[in-house]
Amino acid sequence: MQIGMIGLGRMGANMTTRLLRDGHDCVVHDRNPEAIGRLTALGATEAHTLGELVSALAAPRAIWLMVPAGTVDAVLADLTPLLQAGDILIDGGNSHYHDDLRRAAALRPLGIHYVDVGTSGGIAGLERGYCLMVGGDQAVEHLTPIFATLAPGEGTQPPTPGRQPGASTADQGWLHCGPHGAGHFVKMVHNGIEYGIMAAYAEGMNILRHADIGRQTHAATAETTPLRNPEHYQYDMNLPDIAELWRHGSVISSWLLDLTATALASNPALSGFQGRVSDSGEGRWTIQAAIDEAVPTPVLSAALYSRFASRGEDDFANRVLSAMRQAFGGHVELPDTQD
Amino acid sequence: MQIGMIGLGRMGANMTTRLLRDGHDCVVHDRNPEAIGRLTALGATEAHTLGELVSALAAPRAIWLMVPAGTVDAVLADLTPLLQAGDILIDGGNSHYHDDLRRAAALRPLGIHYVDVGTSGGIAGLERGYCLMVGGDQAVEHLTPIFATLAPGEGTQPPTPGRQPGASTADQGWLHCGPHGAGHFVKMVHNGIEYGIMAAYAEGMNILRHADIGRQTHAATAETTPLRNPEHYQYDMNLPDIAELWRHGSVISSWLLDLTATALASNPALSGFQGRVSDSGEGRWTIQAAIDEAVPTPVLSAALYSRFASRGEDDFANRVLSAMRQAFGGHVELPDTQD
Amino acid sequence: MQIGMIGLGRMGANMTTRLLRDGHDCVVHDRNPEAIGRLTALGATEAHTLGELVSALAAPRAIWLMVPAGTVDAVLADLTPLLQAGDILIDGGNSHYHDDLRRAAALRPLGIHYVDVGTSGGIAGLERGYCLMVGGDQAVEHLTPIFATLAPGEGTQPPTPGRQPGASTADQGWLHCGPHGAGHFVKMVHNGIEYGIMAAYAEGMNILRHADIGRQTHAATAETTPLRNPEHYQYDMNLPDIAELWRHGSVISSWLLDLTATALASNPALSGFQGRVSDSGEGRWTIQAAIDEAVPTPVLSAALYSRFASRGEDDFANRVLSAMRQAFGGHVELPDTQD
Amino acid sequence: MQIGMIGLGRMGANMTTRLLRDGHDCVVHDRNPEAIGRLTALGATEAHTLGELVSALAAPRAIWLMVPAGTVDAVLADLTPLLQAGDILIDGGNSHYHDDLRRAAALRPLGIHYVDVGTSGGIAGLERGYCLMVGGDQAVEHLTPIFATLAPGEGTQPPTPGRQPGASTADQGWLHCGPHGAGHFVKMVHNGIEYGIMAAYAEGMNILRHADIGRQTHAATAETTPLRNPEHYQYDMNLPDIAELWRHGSVISSWLLDLTATALASNPALSGFQGRVSDSGEGRWTIQAAIDEAVPTPVLSAALYSRFASRGEDDFANRVLSAMRQAFGGHVELPDTQD
Repeated sequence: MQIGMIGLGRMGANMTTRLLRDGHDCVVHDRNPEAIGRLTALGATEAHTLGELVSALAAPRAIWLMVPAGTVDAVLADLTPLLQAGDILIDGGNSHYHDDLRRAAALRPLGIHYVDVGTSGGIAGLERGYCLMVGGDQAVEHLTPIFATLAPGEGTQPPTPGRQPGASTADQGWLHCGPHGAGHFVKMVHNGIEYGIMAAYAEGMNILRHADIGRQTHAATAETTPLRNPEHYQYDMNLPDIAELWRHGSVISSWLLDLTATALASNPALSGFQGRVSDSGEGRWTIQAAIDEAVPTPVLSAALYSRFASRGEDDFANRVLSAMRQAFGGHVELPDTQD
Repeated sequence: MQIGMIGLGRMGANMTTRLLRDGHDCVVHDRNPEAIGRLTALGATEAHTLGELVSALAAPRAIWLMVPAGTVDAVLADLTPLLQAGDILIDGGNSHYHDDLRRAAALRPLGIHYVDVGTSGGIAGLERGYCLMVGGDQAVEHLTPIFATLAPGEGTQPPTPGRQPGASTADQGWLHCGPHGAGHFVKMVHNGIEYGIMAAYAEGMNILRHADIGRQTHAATAETTPLRNPEHYQYDMNLPDIAELWRHGSVISSWLLDLTATALASNPALSGFQGRVSDSGEGRWTIQAAIDEAVPTPVLSAALYSRFASRGEDDFANRVLSAMRQAFGGHVELPDTQD
Repeated sequence: MQIGMIGLGRMGANMTTRLLRDGHDCVVHDRNPEAIGRLTALGATEAHTLGELVSALAAPRAIWLMVPAGTVDAVLADLTPLLQAGDILIDGGNSHYHDDLRRAAALRPLGIHYVDVGTSGGIAGLERGYCLMVGGDQAVEHLTPIFATLAPGEGTQPPTPGRQPGASTADQGWLHCGPHGAGHFVKMVHNGIEYGIMAAYAEGMNILRHADIGRQTHAATAETTPLRNPEHYQYDMNLPDIAELWRHGSVISSWLLDLTATALASNPALSGFQGRVSDSGEGRWTIQAAIDEAVPTPVLSAALYSRFASRGEDDFANRVLSAMRQAFGGHVELPDTQD
Repeated sequence: MQIGMIGLGRMGANMTTRLLRDGHDCVVHDRNPEAIGRLTALGATEAHTLGELVSALAAPRAIWLMVPAGTVDAVLADLTPLLQAGDILIDGGNSHYHDDLRRAAALRPLGIHYVDVGTSGGIAGLERGYCLMVGGDQAVEHLTPIFATLAPGEGTQPPTPGRQPGASTADQGWLHCGPHGAGHFVKMVHNGIEYGIMAAYAEGMNILRHADIGRQTHAATAETTPLRNPEHYQYDMNLPDIAELWRHGSVISSWLLDLTATALASNPALSGFQGRVSDSGEGRWTIQAAIDEAVPTPVLSAALYSRFASRGEDDFANRVLSAMRQAFGGHVELPDTQD
């Protein structure tokens, strides 16, 4: 079917490519003309302005936005006046579901449908397909051909025992999760979980990496405590091999483990990384929603806070601790790492 | 090759079955004669005493213990006097690696080799193969045929990009991780990670389940705060579908997610479970090791503590909180769940 | 000075009493006539309707609301039309500071001043004085006599070394923290900290209480791990004595410890409490604000989640864990507490 | 009474001074002759070797060790052969209570008593008195005069309502908590709690410090999410004033808050601190004991881990996260703090 795509960054370009490969008619726009050019070379129709994009699409139009969450409202402000009743706007980026609720309410009087799509899959999605979490009204049904192409499709995973085949489109990798906002809500929680899983591996790998700590010598001072049993920590663990090992038959095999094994295979010490870990919003909103619901999320929160701390956001708190320690015990900060 | 197997519970019986299927000569012992019988029916040689087991094996013997961690030492006390220099004892259960170090040191003067094997795979391992994390001296090499059979084997997973094929046996699902204790150390961390991943999914599912909380009505009292935006929590999420959805193309696809989807497919409300979650030791030891190493493990710890709390171990702490609240604010405990 | 007080619950009644004792002229209103009666007996002027209250006050009026956070807006809706430019409304309850910002903005065109006051002190505040965290515009200055009476006043605590005496009203126990919302913002964080401190004591007390765990016997099963060193846990700790002990010279002495010692003195087992711990909103908002700021708050969050879990909000997550364990390991939930 | 003191560092010197002031006969030893000299100037008897110390004391001797935990065993190895049955050795430092159990068992056949004393109070203890948590056998009673002098003594705190006056020595600030190791066990938990309380304040202060984050501008990129409501974070909080404020009448007043207010009074930005926070062992052992007991301690653990992370111990884990993010999303680490 015909679809407009606004935003041809890493994700938008790959998704458009996947749509083009499956024979969809894509009209594409981006602020960057080169990004447009790369997709017209693959068969897309170029649109250098929003107006061109709207004109190139037959009503009822389906327009997919794949732009940073912070710029969706600005694009909508420019785009909406060009649309007409019956058109469908799809936000496939990382919007907060609260914004979906607000936007859907604002567009409803105009007769414009709003569909929110949480998209997971990363750069592998081009070949593997994208997992699509969809929220919205009956317009979702109209977009079925698009979702079917973007999603991995049936048969890419072993069937789930006890599950009726074809019980829902979930088996293909896309799902109409509920009304407006439901798609981004599910994607939000998905990312919250993702942070937790990633942190679980990362913490475990860190323990393995320090399994040789008994070989290091530390001076005994009143400020520090010696390692009680250095003989327990004499291991040189081969992290690339262990990550690979766990891919085969263990309870913790996963796609994120596959990626970890890949990263370690070529760079066992993970050199070149500073360990300043970004977070893109959903992890935060997950916790804020959990708190509204009074659902305890100690693991998901801890994962988020580790990212904050990795960027130095714990600095002032740590200085408060050092100031207290100096005040009650005359403790002076030690210069070394391991104390 | 020939191997003795002591302990024919869920894990031991399945592992023996897999060994028998691949043509190994298994001499089996268990306190329960019926367990022995089930395996002799599959071709194993029965041994109703440790003495019979030892006699039935040609030196140098390889004897695999698959018994509860708490009974390994008792079995070793009975078994060791029957053995001779060159024999190999394998502990494939959930022993603490400190015990491996101690046992290996005790057996070394007798010329008996000790090999520790962390085994992951659960009840699916019979067909899927087991992930084996091995620690010990050169005796490990002697056991290669056994490990090769128990592990999933090459080609069961897509190769890791950037990894030299056959660089180690890790690609087959087993690995000599290091000297004594290294196998159980890696298994310990594996389980620590497992707890974290499981908790990440569980917390996320709990958030989804409560996404309808805005529909519930709460009385406003000084003790409670009303939900600020009930309109944000009006979703009826279909958990079986969402778990299934995430299996297809999402970043958080994993074997544990497959299992979650399976559990939800036939029992969407997970009725019948009380939510009293056991822990089998490794999760605890992981944290204790992390602390020795000064490695922060907030996610892995939080997962462990949630299990403790699920069994009511937080009860007294909670009563301390209620007592304090009564003391400073005159607060009386509320009877309802959501406050 | 003259002040109106709306809401004569536990906090409002005590605060009015303290104001009356210091000679202020209090006009009091509550939905409950008996609550009014108790204060008129102490010298307050009764007002059985909001209209009576407004009429009894000379302009510019100062009216203090001490009602549940969830009912402030309803009271304001009724009260505001009765007021005139120059009047001052004070919200001394547990409002979210976002509401302060909204209300102040709504009242500004009417010339009505809005002052938000976070109040700490609990039922001890009547005698000890209240710690007041104040936000608002220049109207705050007008209320100085009220704040001076409600706060503990100078000299109730040893002076802080290095601090210039009288540098601010903080030394007396009240502070104009900043513009609208600043009072409740500081109170919000105060309560977040309170939850963390309370949990620190509660967790520590729980460890002490279980210091005899080595005396208990557990059967060894594959589901459980035996306590490795029962000889390390043979202590019968006297919690009332230990709480009392720490009040004297220790680094962790505090008012909350005083209260804990009081609670334990008469009820060492804290019997009668169920351990269902409420939270009144600020603890939640603290975390949500921290996340907006990207400030890691693992301790404050953990404290909040423990309260959620104490009320069973972790139930579904725990059942997910049990379902997973059954799926991969065939594990069945154990009935006993300690496993 | 007469007592030997070994170890005249910050704590040992102050404690000896307090003992001398109260008329006790102190024989003092330290590896540093100047430390000895400072106390002989106050009336102590010098001992330049352990032999001199033992000779200067009348049997049965009481000898207090105030040395780093890591050197206690070395001192005992040299000292014990010089002692005789009936002598009492006191370890007042930060020993692990497991070591107390081991040492007491080793000394028992020699008839030498071992007493473990957890000491809290820091540098303020000289004037304020020390909180003493004591473990051991009947020798504890013999040391009553020493404990009575070191502890704050009765009447330094308001009595606890409902507590029988003089019910135990806890009211004076010292307590025989139980058999060997009980003193250091209670001190261990005390410090675990201390870490939690300190972190609660530190996290709260960090939230207040960043309450102006809405004034900062961030570029919108796909890597980052903009602050949704910058108007909510426009506060310049005065931390010294707020810390002072909370000392007066609030629920969270405490000695640690007093110290925080002191530190902030003269150094509001806490400049000069790097925020590398040491931990001296007890915090770690607290968690390890809690895990043995299956007691959930999310708050105490989080506090400990924040200290680990403050010293960069989370570095490798963070790099694992960055490597994963690059692998699945092509994400590149951002250079700036707030992302």
